[in-house]
Amino acid sequence: MESGEIIQELRSFVAERDWEQFHSPENLAKSITIEAAELLELFQWQNPSDISQVADELADVLTYCLLLADKYDLDPGEIIRSKLVKTRSKYPVEKSKGKSDKYDRI
Amino acid sequence: MESGEIIQELRSFVAERDWEQFHSPENLAKSITIEAAELLELFQWQNPSDISQVADELADVLTYCLLLADKYDLDPGEIIRSKLVKTRSKYPVEKSKGKSDKYDRI
Amino acid sequence: MESGEIIQELRSFVAERDWEQFHSPENLAKSITIEAAELLELFQWQNPSDISQVADELADVLTYCLLLADKYDLDPGEIIRSKLVKTRSKYPVEKSKGKSDKYDRI
Amino acid sequence: MESGEIIQELRSFVAERDWEQFHSPENLAKSITIEAAELLELFQWQNPSDISQVADELADVLTYCLLLADKYDLDPGEIIRSKLVKTRSKYPVEKSKGKSDKYDRI
Repeated sequence: MESGEIIQELRSFVAERDWEQFHSPENLAKSITIEAAELLELFQWQNPSDISQVADELADVLTYCLLLADKYDLDPGEIIRSKLVKTRSKYPVEKSKGKSDKYDRI
Repeated sequence: MESGEIIQELRSFVAERDWEQFHSPENLAKSITIEAAELLELFQWQNPSDISQVADELADVLTYCLLLADKYDLDPGEIIRSKLVKTRSKYPVEKSKGKSDKYDRI
Repeated sequence: MESGEIIQELRSFVAERDWEQFHSPENLAKSITIEAAELLELFQWQNPSDISQVADELADVLTYCLLLADKYDLDPGEIIRSKLVKTRSKYPVEKSKGKSDKYDRI
Repeated sequence: MESGEIIQELRSFVAERDWEQFHSPENLAKSITIEAAELLELFQWQNPSDISQVADELADVLTYCLLLADKYDLDPGEIIRSKLVKTRSKYPVEKSKGKSDKYDRI
């Protein structure tokens, strides 16, 4: 995925429908949570058998994430990499290998 | 963001720490929801003033999304585009312009 | 739990701190989601061993639920019972026994 | 709401349908999150006008909360009160009055 191209498509999609008025950062943050839970619902009682449903719900989460990143002028790749640097130092390999404990317990 | 490159970095990060054992699709879906709510928490009582916190929490959501896509061999860009095609037909411009109603009410 | 008594205590707690100003229905709905995800976080990679943590997080979800019910003048017991009547007819015993399928698939 | 009575009704409802098999603590925690997001969805773009929908979604969250409390033999009223004691000391009136800041910032 080249996010620069996709965000252009998403911006057009939103603008055509005059939907920017609903896309406050807060509404986008709520939307990410709402779609994340719809994705989780596929795993509510058992693992999903229809992967196209996982694809659709995951796409919804990603879509709202890209719209929120765009709203704050954040580059998705850069923010993921920046966070990874912080996570690397919170979870040094020697202390966290094979463990699921949170960093304050490793 | 070129997601192919980033997913390589994320795979290495996970493998170094022997964390794949915790990354069942269900655990990844739970993680996306958990991180989405941490992002929403920045908007709980007011809008956030510190955008670097938004960047970090959004990065966490995106990270788990990419890991789940990778787990199911889904390309993030493709699934977003596929879903956009479906959303376009659910929300034709002439019926949905300027409205936030769900498709069964437009 | 006698919810009538508890809601009185919660109202006092909120009023003492002049917090009603932050308790719009929307903020309360966001808070329920945020706390629900903190509860889920205890189950992120494995089941929790410390049940007092489950108790605290579950208490937070319940607290915001009672505050939202009170905001809309809804009685928690009544709304649970009303919904149960609807759920009984969506999931008749003979069709849903032993199955986790949603009602449109039983 | 007298939660002791309601939990009896919920237990019967679940038992009649042989659904306890699906009610692991983790599945109940996931369900609380899923229903909380369905409630939040009513506030996604604007405040809801149909309060009966709020009542139904809130009832779903409360229902799963009571089922999880029952699974761990927790009394909803007691855990709310216990947590309130802790919250009182984290947010003393003189420091937190009129402020929405988290306790480490008041």
